[in-house]
Amino acid sequence: MSAKKTVGILGASGYTGAELVRLLLRHPRVELALLTADRRAGQAMGDVFPQFAPYDLPKLVSIDSVDWAKASLDLVFCALPHATTQKVLKDLLAKSPTTKVVDLSADFRLDDPAAYAKWYGHEHHALELQKEAVYGLVEVYRREIKKARLVANPGCYTTCAQLPLVPLLKAKAIEPDEIVIDAKSGMTGAGRSAKEEMLFSEVSEGFHAYGVGHHRHMAELDQEFSKAAGKEVLVSFTPHLLPMNRGIFSTIYVRGRRGKTAQDLHDILVKQYEKEPFVYVLPFGKTPQSRHVRGSNMTFIGVANDRIPGRAIIVSTLDNLTKGASGQAVQNMNLVLGFPETTGIDQPALFP
Amino acid sequence: MSAKKTVGILGASGYTGAELVRLLLRHPRVELALLTADRRAGQAMGDVFPQFAPYDLPKLVSIDSVDWAKASLDLVFCALPHATTQKVLKDLLAKSPTTKVVDLSADFRLDDPAAYAKWYGHEHHALELQKEAVYGLVEVYRREIKKARLVANPGCYTTCAQLPLVPLLKAKAIEPDEIVIDAKSGMTGAGRSAKEEMLFSEVSEGFHAYGVGHHRHMAELDQEFSKAAGKEVLVSFTPHLLPMNRGIFSTIYVRGRRGKTAQDLHDILVKQYEKEPFVYVLPFGKTPQSRHVRGSNMTFIGVANDRIPGRAIIVSTLDNLTKGASGQAVQNMNLVLGFPETTGIDQPALFP
Amino acid sequence: MSAKKTVGILGASGYTGAELVRLLLRHPRVELALLTADRRAGQAMGDVFPQFAPYDLPKLVSIDSVDWAKASLDLVFCALPHATTQKVLKDLLAKSPTTKVVDLSADFRLDDPAAYAKWYGHEHHALELQKEAVYGLVEVYRREIKKARLVANPGCYTTCAQLPLVPLLKAKAIEPDEIVIDAKSGMTGAGRSAKEEMLFSEVSEGFHAYGVGHHRHMAELDQEFSKAAGKEVLVSFTPHLLPMNRGIFSTIYVRGRRGKTAQDLHDILVKQYEKEPFVYVLPFGKTPQSRHVRGSNMTFIGVANDRIPGRAIIVSTLDNLTKGASGQAVQNMNLVLGFPETTGIDQPALFP
Amino acid sequence: MSAKKTVGILGASGYTGAELVRLLLRHPRVELALLTADRRAGQAMGDVFPQFAPYDLPKLVSIDSVDWAKASLDLVFCALPHATTQKVLKDLLAKSPTTKVVDLSADFRLDDPAAYAKWYGHEHHALELQKEAVYGLVEVYRREIKKARLVANPGCYTTCAQLPLVPLLKAKAIEPDEIVIDAKSGMTGAGRSAKEEMLFSEVSEGFHAYGVGHHRHMAELDQEFSKAAGKEVLVSFTPHLLPMNRGIFSTIYVRGRRGKTAQDLHDILVKQYEKEPFVYVLPFGKTPQSRHVRGSNMTFIGVANDRIPGRAIIVSTLDNLTKGASGQAVQNMNLVLGFPETTGIDQPALFP
Repeated sequence: MSAKKTVGILGASGYTGAELVRLLLRHPRVELALLTADRRAGQAMGDVFPQFAPYDLPKLVSIDSVDWAKASLDLVFCALPHATTQKVLKDLLAKSPTTKVVDLSADFRLDDPAAYAKWYGHEHHALELQKEAVYGLVEVYRREIKKARLVANPGCYTTCAQLPLVPLLKAKAIEPDEIVIDAKSGMTGAGRSAKEEMLFSEVSEGFHAYGVGHHRHMAELDQEFSKAAGKEVLVSFTPHLLPMNRGIFSTIYVRGRRGKTAQDLHDILVKQYEKEPFVYVLPFGKTPQSRHVRGSNMTFIGVANDRIPGRAIIVSTLDNLTKGASGQAVQNMNLVLGFPETTGIDQPALFP
Repeated sequence: MSAKKTVGILGASGYTGAELVRLLLRHPRVELALLTADRRAGQAMGDVFPQFAPYDLPKLVSIDSVDWAKASLDLVFCALPHATTQKVLKDLLAKSPTTKVVDLSADFRLDDPAAYAKWYGHEHHALELQKEAVYGLVEVYRREIKKARLVANPGCYTTCAQLPLVPLLKAKAIEPDEIVIDAKSGMTGAGRSAKEEMLFSEVSEGFHAYGVGHHRHMAELDQEFSKAAGKEVLVSFTPHLLPMNRGIFSTIYVRGRRGKTAQDLHDILVKQYEKEPFVYVLPFGKTPQSRHVRGSNMTFIGVANDRIPGRAIIVSTLDNLTKGASGQAVQNMNLVLGFPETTGIDQPALFP
Repeated sequence: MSAKKTVGILGASGYTGAELVRLLLRHPRVELALLTADRRAGQAMGDVFPQFAPYDLPKLVSIDSVDWAKASLDLVFCALPHATTQKVLKDLLAKSPTTKVVDLSADFRLDDPAAYAKWYGHEHHALELQKEAVYGLVEVYRREIKKARLVANPGCYTTCAQLPLVPLLKAKAIEPDEIVIDAKSGMTGAGRSAKEEMLFSEVSEGFHAYGVGHHRHMAELDQEFSKAAGKEVLVSFTPHLLPMNRGIFSTIYVRGRRGKTAQDLHDILVKQYEKEPFVYVLPFGKTPQSRHVRGSNMTFIGVANDRIPGRAIIVSTLDNLTKGASGQAVQNMNLVLGFPETTGIDQPALFP
Repeated sequence: MSAKKTVGILGASGYTGAELVRLLLRHPRVELALLTADRRAGQAMGDVFPQFAPYDLPKLVSIDSVDWAKASLDLVFCALPHATTQKVLKDLLAKSPTTKVVDLSADFRLDDPAAYAKWYGHEHHALELQKEAVYGLVEVYRREIKKARLVANPGCYTTCAQLPLVPLLKAKAIEPDEIVIDAKSGMTGAGRSAKEEMLFSEVSEGFHAYGVGHHRHMAELDQEFSKAAGKEVLVSFTPHLLPMNRGIFSTIYVRGRRGKTAQDLHDILVKQYEKEPFVYVLPFGKTPQSRHVRGSNMTFIGVANDRIPGRAIIVSTLDNLTKGASGQAVQNMNLVLGFPETTGIDQPALFP
């Protein structure tokens, strides 16, 4: 076997960073050569995430201390906050143009600078890179990703909604103006920052919606759904927080178009995904549970009849940290670096 | 003060039974004179629910052992399984016709015997009583309940959906054919029977839908929504199970009718409920959390703009064991026995 | 009935503050006249704890803005952080000497200024008040509390351990040098401050110890156990955090003294507590569950044989926010203001 | 690479069965050739555990339908209930004597038939096999396991307690008569049978002890601790149930012998385990969290000073389904079949 490729993780002290380390520690083709975490620079990864204490890993360093040219990494995962990302990657790619990047932030997901400016409240700082970036939903853009230098890894909510809906919109099988997505996320989706509303006692034993009517993920959905449908699509989308760690679960209400039944929609999805390693469509009428994809890179999709004639209920679920973030990022890395797509991310779910 | 009224609970070993005991133990106007639990007959209530061990309560007895005429109870709460209920109440009211009944099962909620037979798979066994029964959604049927002998206490999912939607349908403010109710329930809603799928390890750290497209609660919704709208209404309704004990949370997607905006819908609800002790409408644009009604008899309702013009998102939440079952049952009892409506059920929520 | 007494809560935006509001909102003898919360001054209580939004409550104000003489409160609950408390109460009692105080901090629990200085790292700022303060473990110091102006409400861990152990130490029934207390607390015991280690995802689905070998609560245990035993007592005490909101649970390992068996220890506790309204001793050999005291002011205690001859295992559990903090504080208020001791705190537990 | 070995799992529909499938699906040296589950015979593994639906696995069959001679499996994992195990394995090994067995039940853990009869209430049905069986705590009996045909995989509680205590007892570094083990387990330790006391709503948001003074696991502890100490050892041991899925956590109170300090105990454990792949000893004074070993085969151990001179507090934690059951079983299989010991079980923990 050829020498391992060297990879780095920028922002290793967050949950997606830790999930990348979990998956890459046993990945047979890469070596973790760099871990950054500005506020924890100088510490061991095991100080920040004690599960890694027994393993050999590079010390955490600050981004500013890295000499990108010298580091000459084969690939970098960027798990930094929004906006910071643009600046860091601009600098990195200027100094080490052959390094590939899989970016887990939202910074390079929107094609349209105007859409970006509208949702994020400021001009994009790296427009050239934004043009170059490829949207990393593998099941849709696999061919483009293989050739990309910069991959914009999709969001967790949006991956969960796109995998069932993009093929149906492309097939013009559902009414694009009557889509309701009721989405629920585990708490890791909210990240690791210390906020009162994310304390255990504020979140356990209860349920609530947030960002009702104006969540940023909508921009990404609008873009991809509109592309798929060939016309502007706006969906109703409400995110909620579940008292659990991992999992996105979307209950999607659609109306079949031109006589398409729920069974027809199911057929389209079964056919679309029968050879995909990370999407599993349940038998018609059955719906999945989020716990059965926990820790895996799988998306489980179910389709059932609504009792209202002409309507269907679609359920889609994935682990927000794996297929919804770091697992999909490794899937993208595998494509970009020319490895078999499932390398290192083919573990079954951890249940119970 | 006049002598206390005597009340009994049939089916005291389930969760709604325990919740009734919790609320009635400190109710100043009634005395718990009878507790039945067939499989636990002979045991103390504290053997079945240890939280009650320190209190003086009647022993559990079997229903068959009760002499209804002699017991001569002022009121009975019936928390028995479906179908059994019909037989027991028929017998009870034959022998003790002056006893009032608040029934927590689904047996007397449907006016139409054909609807009952369709959803439950058999003829109703007590048609005369069904005719007499009054549907116990207090905020809608208060006047009728005051005069009733037999009150059919509404279901938890349906109470949560009706409180926001009935006034809007009555006002013809929303399109009755485009209502989507995405409902989530805590695990106590599934009762206390020992089933594999309700084990802690099967339910925690995950989320799933059930009864997709064909849940029995729909019959009750159909009936009440159709009455409110003055025409047949079918809604999309999907129930889910949350990894938590208490709480129903409904995210409801509606379209305003004849130009009605989300703000208009909010105005209608604020006006409707401003004097109701157990319904609180949040300021426009805010949505509630289920944990903030835990253990209380409150329903919290929020209304927000959907970003799709003409559409609104309504969120409604209550505690399935309190306002969704036993608390509302006590509220009904208070009306039936002539007590102030809030007696014994005016505690604020237990949070955190 | 005479006019209601006026009470205030200093530090109403924390969990013990909210629990006080929950209990006092329906207390028939007092009126909540003042709520302070420095960082949330100007807001409504319902902004900070939405469960209170439907109720009439005073606005939150800053402590500095209060004129104590003019406010002339009958009683103040102080739920402020350590050290701040001393300064605030010194000022308050100087300006309004007839106001009674129930303090929920640790500031006035230690008799010995040297012990205070050792555990807290600085001199006590209100030594005169410390002398005056009465330790508020009602079941031990009821008589003194009735006459007190300043009551130091005990800690949650220590209440849970003292209720079973103080009578046994007083009776010289157990070896004072061989006591091991393995204590577990729900997350609300850690308060409401936004710290990474208290985030939902850091705490759920796991268990850990903290402060191993050096937890501050030990000072309070040392003091009270030594008083009870009539000699210096040091116990092994390890606190842990449970992935749940409410509850303290102590598993206590003891050796009987002079032939005393586990059954003998049980007899002592049964006799000690048979008339106490808030302590329930289970039948010999049975042990309690924390969930069965949730939201109530009860302590449940069980005693069982260890299989090692001469040793016993004692289990004690209470709700850390109720009997472990705010419930006991109201119990103290009832004594101080001359109300029946159980007023407003006699609700059964909320389970499930 | 040589051909894969064929392995079977008896009792694949329980949690330890599922955990074996999770680990073996990606094990590079074995092929899952047989899965039994009597009550689910005829179904797919994906019907019983939906996380496996996307994978190719043999159908579930009943044990009676298996022809052991013909199946000629290289190794069988037995995850059957107590007592049944003895009968099944007697039959299996009679018909296929070269098949190796790793048994996850308690049936072959006790050397002494009298101890077995005392704790389990009946004579052992396979005394010859019991003599042959090797106790499978790898870190203690590695050499013997490599040559074994029948390995008795240790219990979860006992593995967690033995890994820290056996080396200390062997070194005569702690008083064998003053050991207190306060043990806590996640709910999967209680298995998958449908019992009321294991329902979500009975278990969440609370904590309790069980089997106080008489838990069966004590027999296994007695045996191994007595062997290690060279004299009879009885420990105080109390198991509790945690409101979470996975994890055993033991807080262990010991007294150093002959002047041994906590630091000395730490030194012994560090030295003992520095080369072990699945035991990690934290720096002195630090204690681990159960969540940081979730889903991994690691045991994390911490040692700290008690404040009582001469005493130490030891904390040990592992995942009850992995190192406490199925992971350790695979570790045993690796030894028995001559594979590198860490094959297929070296994934880092899944946190958060």
